Amino acid sequence: MHDHFTSHAADLSGPRSFPSIADGFALGGDYSPEQWPEEVWQEDVALMRRAGVNSVNLGVFSWGLLEVADGEYDWGWLDRAMDLLHENGIGVNLATPTAAPPMWLLQAHPEIATVDEFGVRTSQGGRLAWSPSSATFRRFALRFVRALAERYGSHPALRLWHVSNEIGNENARCYSDETALAWQSWLEARFGSIDALNQAWGTAFWGHHYTSFSQVLPPRHARTSHNPGLLLDFERFTSDALLGHYLAERAVLREVTPDIPITTNFMIMNNPGVADYRRWAEEVDLVANDHYTIGADPERHGELSFSADRARGVAQGRPWLLIEHSTSAVNWQPVNRAKSAGELARNSLAHIARGADGALFFQWRVSAAGSEQFHSGIVPHAGADSKIYREVEALGAVLRAIAPVAGSTVERARLGILFDWESAAAWRSGNKPTRSIGYLDLPLALHRALTRRGIAAEVVRPQEGLDGFDLVLVPTLYLAAPGVAEQLGEFARAGGHVLVSYLSGIVDDANRVITGGYPGAYRDLLGVRVEEFYPLFEGESVSLDSGATATTWTELLRAEGAEVLARYATGELAGHPAVTRARVGAGSATYLSAGLDAAGIQSLVDDLVALAGVAPVADVDEGIEVTRRRSADRSYLFLINHTGEDLEARASGTDLVSGAVHSGVVSVAAGAVVVLEEAAR
Amino acid sequence: MHDHFTSHAADLSGPRSFPSIADGFALGGDYSPEQWPEEVWQEDVALMRRAGVNSVNLGVFSWGLLEVADGEYDWGWLDRAMDLLHENGIGVNLATPTAAPPMWLLQAHPEIATVDEFGVRTSQGGRLAWSPSSATFRRFALRFVRALAERYGSHPALRLWHVSNEIGNENARCYSDETALAWQSWLEARFGSIDALNQAWGTAFWGHHYTSFSQVLPPRHARTSHNPGLLLDFERFTSDALLGHYLAERAVLREVTPDIPITTNFMIMNNPGVADYRRWAEEVDLVANDHYTIGADPERHGELSFSADRARGVAQGRPWLLIEHSTSAVNWQPVNRAKSAGELARNSLAHIARGADGALFFQWRVSAAGSEQFHSGIVPHAGADSKIYREVEALGAVLRAIAPVAGSTVERARLGILFDWESAAAWRSGNKPTRSIGYLDLPLALHRALTRRGIAAEVVRPQEGLDGFDLVLVPTLYLAAPGVAEQLGEFARAGGHVLVSYLSGIVDDANRVITGGYPGAYRDLLGVRVEEFYPLFEGESVSLDSGATATTWTELLRAEGAEVLARYATGELAGHPAVTRARVGAGSATYLSAGLDAAGIQSLVDDLVALAGVAPVADVDEGIEVTRRRSADRSYLFLINHTGEDLEARASGTDLVSGAVHSGVVSVAAGAVVVLEEAAR
Amino acid sequence: MHDHFTSHAADLSGPRSFPSIADGFALGGDYSPEQWPEEVWQEDVALMRRAGVNSVNLGVFSWGLLEVADGEYDWGWLDRAMDLLHENGIGVNLATPTAAPPMWLLQAHPEIATVDEFGVRTSQGGRLAWSPSSATFRRFALRFVRALAERYGSHPALRLWHVSNEIGNENARCYSDETALAWQSWLEARFGSIDALNQAWGTAFWGHHYTSFSQVLPPRHARTSHNPGLLLDFERFTSDALLGHYLAERAVLREVTPDIPITTNFMIMNNPGVADYRRWAEEVDLVANDHYTIGADPERHGELSFSADRARGVAQGRPWLLIEHSTSAVNWQPVNRAKSAGELARNSLAHIARGADGALFFQWRVSAAGSEQFHSGIVPHAGADSKIYREVEALGAVLRAIAPVAGSTVERARLGILFDWESAAAWRSGNKPTRSIGYLDLPLALHRALTRRGIAAEVVRPQEGLDGFDLVLVPTLYLAAPGVAEQLGEFARAGGHVLVSYLSGIVDDANRVITGGYPGAYRDLLGVRVEEFYPLFEGESVSLDSGATATTWTELLRAEGAEVLARYATGELAGHPAVTRARVGAGSATYLSAGLDAAGIQSLVDDLVALAGVAPVADVDEGIEVTRRRSADRSYLFLINHTGEDLEARASGTDLVSGAVHSGVVSVAAGAVVVLEEAAR
Repeated sequence: MHDHFTSHAADLSGPRSFPSIADGFALGGDYSPEQWPEEVWQEDVALMRRAGVNSVNLGVFSWGLLEVADGEYDWGWLDRAMDLLHENGIGVNLATPTAAPPMWLLQAHPEIATVDEFGVRTSQGGRLAWSPSSATFRRFALRFVRALAERYGSHPALRLWHVSNEIGNENARCYSDETALAWQSWLEARFGSIDALNQAWGTAFWGHHYTSFSQVLPPRHARTSHNPGLLLDFERFTSDALLGHYLAERAVLREVTPDIPITTNFMIMNNPGVADYRRWAEEVDLVANDHYTIGADPERHGELSFSADRARGVAQGRPWLLIEHSTSAVNWQPVNRAKSAGELARNSLAHIARGADGALFFQWRVSAAGSEQFHSGIVPHAGADSKIYREVEALGAVLRAIAPVAGSTVERARLGILFDWESAAAWRSGNKPTRSIGYLDLPLALHRALTRRGIAAEVVRPQEGLDGFDLVLVPTLYLAAPGVAEQLGEFARAGGHVLVSYLSGIVDDANRVITGGYPGAYRDLLGVRVEEFYPLFEGESVSLDSGATATTWTELLRAEGAEVLARYATGELAGHPAVTRARVGAGSATYLSAGLDAAGIQSLVDDLVALAGVAPVADVDEGIEVTRRRSADRSYLFLINHTGEDLEARASGTDLVSGAVHSGVVSVAAGAVVVLEEAAR
Repeated sequence: MHDHFTSHAADLSGPRSFPSIADGFALGGDYSPEQWPEEVWQEDVALMRRAGVNSVNLGVFSWGLLEVADGEYDWGWLDRAMDLLHENGIGVNLATPTAAPPMWLLQAHPEIATVDEFGVRTSQGGRLAWSPSSATFRRFALRFVRALAERYGSHPALRLWHVSNEIGNENARCYSDETALAWQSWLEARFGSIDALNQAWGTAFWGHHYTSFSQVLPPRHARTSHNPGLLLDFERFTSDALLGHYLAERAVLREVTPDIPITTNFMIMNNPGVADYRRWAEEVDLVANDHYTIGADPERHGELSFSADRARGVAQGRPWLLIEHSTSAVNWQPVNRAKSAGELARNSLAHIARGADGALFFQWRVSAAGSEQFHSGIVPHAGADSKIYREVEALGAVLRAIAPVAGSTVERARLGILFDWESAAAWRSGNKPTRSIGYLDLPLALHRALTRRGIAAEVVRPQEGLDGFDLVLVPTLYLAAPGVAEQLGEFARAGGHVLVSYLSGIVDDANRVITGGYPGAYRDLLGVRVEEFYPLFEGESVSLDSGATATTWTELLRAEGAEVLARYATGELAGHPAVTRARVGAGSATYLSAGLDAAGIQSLVDDLVALAGVAPVADVDEGIEVTRRRSADRSYLFLINHTGEDLEARASGTDLVSGAVHSGVVSVAAGAVVVLEEAAR
Repeated sequence: MHDHFTSHAADLSGPRSFPSIADGFALGGDYSPEQWPEEVWQEDVALMRRAGVNSVNLGVFSWGLLEVADGEYDWGWLDRAMDLLHENGIGVNLATPTAAPPMWLLQAHPEIATVDEFGVRTSQGGRLAWSPSSATFRRFALRFVRALAERYGSHPALRLWHVSNEIGNENARCYSDETALAWQSWLEARFGSIDALNQAWGTAFWGHHYTSFSQVLPPRHARTSHNPGLLLDFERFTSDALLGHYLAERAVLREVTPDIPITTNFMIMNNPGVADYRRWAEEVDLVANDHYTIGADPERHGELSFSADRARGVAQGRPWLLIEHSTSAVNWQPVNRAKSAGELARNSLAHIARGADGALFFQWRVSAAGSEQFHSGIVPHAGADSKIYREVEALGAVLRAIAPVAGSTVERARLGILFDWESAAAWRSGNKPTRSIGYLDLPLALHRALTRRGIAAEVVRPQEGLDGFDLVLVPTLYLAAPGVAEQLGEFARAGGHVLVSYLSGIVDDANRVITGGYPGAYRDLLGVRVEEFYPLFEGESVSLDSGATATTWTELLRAEGAEVLARYATGELAGHPAVTRARVGAGSATYLSAGLDAAGIQSLVDDLVALAGVAPVADVDEGIEVTRRRSADRSYLFLINHTGEDLEARASGTDLVSGAVHSGVVSVAAGAVVVLEEAAR
């Protein structure tokens, strides 16, 4: 039933169904009528209809134009905009505009703003200046949210509450005195006693022993690196403090408008980002994500696919919404690349292929003024007679053509990649053996290698069940959450295959090293013990006797029960094991100690996939991205050709886009997308 | 009449004549006798006479040595220095020493100092610490200026008031509360109503709506980019606030010494700099400029020539004074290159060739101590028995030999380059499509290409008349000032030829994009419409079918009436127009959409010059820089050989430097300068 | 007598003998039992005994665990640790834990923390947050030091007081108001009158004239470079202020425990570092140094050797203690390289070869938590069954085998390198002709060239006597201390040979340029005069007619009495002298004006060594580092092979490590160390 979706939000008494925000796939974007004279609005809705826009995000930054002075409201323009959209059949995701506190509020209460680690308070002029720990801000924000909900809660255009905007994007990490009090309360709730905190963080080092929670400050500017345990907990606190603001708004909205679903837009691509979105996801009715490609990355579509799989993982496999991406250039990169012909459609459909039930753009009409005047939109400065508008119009047609796919879900993969925000946060918290390895590097490289072979993956939080997987990858999963080692062991004993890489299972939940040899959490499973890390400098490389090349990382590894698959052939560690595999029950546990280059990673993936018998989604030429969505009685194969050459896939069915019927072989033109309703199999 | 010059300063009731500051060309520099025992002064003046020094800047940083405590003066040493200089026939440009507030003042009133965007107040120990919006500083400064003017206003050595020093160099942009009040007043005067400001800046974006001027703060540290309109106006306010300090000093000086001309030293080479010097120029009796080459730039003489043309443009074609440059190395670059043999003379004469009526150096005698102890001077640490002193001595002889040239003006060129501080300030205000293009890049590249062909150019503000030009270049003139588009249209219809480049005419006066397709201001004139920008990454390049190469910028361009001169041959835009030309009345309007490399720019310039029939100043070998100055009845050809090889020019006349008479061909030795009094033509 | 050592500390009435801190060579490290449960302590001491550990640094960061609240003490755990160590025959260097003020103290008195130049006060969470000028901190620190000394002063395990830790490492340079008062007092003591200060600093420049010491502030954030004289004196003040803290602690310790020697750990490798250790050395009973190699430096063992020679120089030729180095990786470099096999032994023995009487490691057991959880130790995370522990165990055996060497001193070299902290501090104080030359570059390059030839060197402060030297090198000795020029003249006249390089003798004691031509202090000695500096840009190079290549620096040099050894062959200075030599009495004075590459430096060194007749320590293959220690009746040759190939030395004697007897030729295996008790010569 794709006209409804089910919320599992934690504040509901149980799963609950809400109407979908659009018929078929959602198409549209952020709409800011307040930036334009009302005569332009008429052209806007006409163009929206022409392009098939059915969903807009409205009012994202409009607080100051609605509450024009303390407690004084002016709803007129928004009333008219809501009515106009409704008249034209366009649904509204109405934002609580708390991302943009009014100037009068910032003037009256500058203390609501975040303070950085040097004690500098954020001034006005950006957005999201507020600290989530400011009681004053909370009071003003909730008063406005209530007024907004009361005014528009029963407006027929309203489909979804869009709480604030990219919470944490500019207000991550506050170090103010008010925040310090919230932090101390959070710590007291987490640890119970100050002795427990001292023990967890290892405060005996450098004499950081506390005798009261009131002594613990945020990690303000010191002249050295702070305690890694403190840093990690400050990341957790920050995520929780920001989520706390969302929860406070949600409570008001749920009370006033119990029948309207509620979400907030995530930024999953941020690496590693300030919010533990997997945890946040449990509080929204629908996961909604913002995604922007990095123009300088020639493989940006691979990053997009991984982010989309992460979003689906955060949504626990259920459909989700791409609530912001761009039609073309953004304005915040050093050089803001225009998208290539067809790229906006490929980007949109790649998200949909991986579970999104819509693709909205920031923004509808490009601003003439303001900080984002050069951020692309659906209607560029040049107007609707333009490549971009025409491409969106064409996308609208495609989305209508593939409407049958809406409501289906992505076929569950047999391969899981364990990925965890806490682990990422731990890796950035404190001095580490190297700064040359980013938390996302290996997971993304593995995902690319899989995608190149047409193999699907689920990105899952370690604590989640591994049922249904044949192969589980554990790439640089630095922090070992409680129970994960046991879970992996059970999985392998039952016949599953596991790959654990270097820099996995190094620290516990408190960011303390698990002693006895790395990887502390998994060394029994793997039958290995790492004595010492041998990170490589940029430009350095080491060969393995398998022919692979390590470029970032090596280790002094001992096999203690595992079979040695490859040894180091050059460098300090020549002769020592590099890759091992232990038989575990009916399964296996492979350990990778070396930071391999792309070719080495591809070989390893090929080997593991063969070992575990994981099949590709379909047999496709390299360069085609392939995924499958399934409904109760249908399956849909998405084939996206990211290359400049025509390619082929071995599949059969009807291309919903072109209407063509394929039998056995599907040709996918350069840059094109085929959505095949598959012949019954 | 080269013994007088005419001031057009705005505070005079009309143009007014003042005696020249030196007989013939001024030669000399900043003189700091207070740094040396008085016995050294005798050697100083003897060496000055030997070198032909006739003009010094005196007292630039002497406030604290003259007002030794609040209201307590000690004039003795300055009296003696003034007398000594006068006795030796050396004119004095006496500085008001307000660039260096005394320590006792900074201690008593730390609040006079600038505050940065993070709230950090500048401490003592540098120079120019004061905020131009500080009422307290203003009061102390004017009291001292009055005392100084009263003391020395009738001293016979006094030729010129040199107000403060490089105003804005270290005190650009203050964010203090006192500045905020001045900023609010400035905004109120500019906009009249807060609604007008909201409209101009587009404050609806990000909810920046103001309901009172008192809510508008300087762009202090936020965590995102500020509104581009606000940023541009803050640049304008800053320029005006700094100019305001000059005006306040000028008022005192004019009142006390109405017969002494007044100026302040500009820094036109700063890119784009904090002061709108074209506007400042209307307030000085004589434009005076500081110029320093960047040693790491192998084409630094080209930058110098362009800066000199900019200075002449700022002076509206009248003579001006090079009041500071260096004999050799400076001390503030990462590696401070010594000048090559002859370079100080070529630099001096290149300025004079482009309109300067003198060449003064910072500094006379190199300091032993203080922050600039390694900045070169006329008398180096090694003393007068040195390459540098001898080169200055030789320069003195050349200046005496070419004294007949003094008082002449540079022959008006037939080619104008539109250049504008506001446009530069707008380009740096806010997020832009690329950070890889500097505002000066294309104007300078065009100027180099012209200089290579011996073609002269005027650098003019867009609003100025275009009379007398055959060709007008509009390179990356980002902001379209009111009326400029109309003016260019009239110019072209009357037979003129125009080149407009990418990134011209994009925003209006308020830094708002002119919508409908780029370049909004000029698309009717050009018969084109740009749909979208395609900036290139470093290392990327695209070919045109003309053989040219674009390396920084391309655009999706449509010809809508214009003829296509060249198309993109590779890349995303292959097949689309790259360069177009529209016939406009008797003239033409060429549009360049591509950021070309040097060869491409040279070809374009050669083509345009041929089209417009613009002739070179003289027929010279490549590598000779050629310019012409004219008096009522004479013309002087400057030929500067910047290469290491002997070259030739086709010209006739008498070399004032050597006395040689040339007929038809002039040989210019490697590194040499010829100043030819031309045979009547 | 190597079971005692002699202190020359200034607070003693004369030289005084103390018992050595260990029998034979000290081996051990920083021990933090407070980080581990007491059951681990038993394993610790067992492993210590097994490895031959005989000396530990204890209690370095333990203040907060001992003074658990203001004036409330808990000595229990430390009592037990001291007893346990004593029972196991391990000596304790007991730290006063003032590097780590307790959290309760930082909360009660945040004003004890340093303030940076922007006014930001250091927060808690690092170490050494305190300002040495804080009277409040001093009071709390001394109260605790007294309590500690009273408690443990007569404990039998106590061998040495280890005052605080790396004083200045994180608390260098405080700019607070309280510091300003201390700074003003220091200046008044130094200069006597404010006029003397004005004269010394040249405050006439930029109007920095002071009329009272109370006007002189620390060099807080201005927008330009501060006065070089002020900057240099602020460096001197900072060193003195930090030393002042040590002296205050020492006074308490000396009073309470007159029989226990006192030291603090230096960081001589810091370049140039904040402390004038040569001056500090006069206040410690035993010089103790921390040294860490930079993993990215492929020639790091050369840097280590130079630092060790600097340490011996600071100790004025007497033995000293390596009190901290690392077994393998550190945690604060961008990529933290593991040490190669045998490297920890070579590093330890290279220090001992150059005078150290022990080699202690930070740290005993690697922390599981805290900021340095990835800093290597003797017992790694993997436990004692590990490469590292086994290598330390082996080192222990070597140290026992070479115990006869303990108490001997390094044979005095015939070659001196003048090196000076003040000169280094002057070079970093203010704008300079280039930023591409570091103060350590040339001294280290010369030292490497000497080491390559087996030639020993003493690193001496310029003011120290030159007796016994045949050759003295003066590399980039920027500041000319009073009397040094005269001393070098006497040395040369008496037959000594001197090399002076560019950037030597440029400024006087007040950081004022010595005028008249560079190098002002030495130009009479050298018979040269430099007119002007010609620094080179990165990538630029100039050839000399000797075949050498200059890459960083050249000068316009005139020989005024000196013979020209080499001239510039290319570039601006082609034909001008580059290297000169003057005959001075029975000796010579060579001047090097060019920043040569490594080959050029090697040639120059070879030439000078031949000229002065300086012989190598022994005739060894290149790649062997050779040094000699001597006792009254014995000599010991250390041969360290840093290469991967077996090499030879021409020498005879008994290898104390292996027991092998060598006659004429000693083979030194790849990576191995031979300590030869030499046959009588």
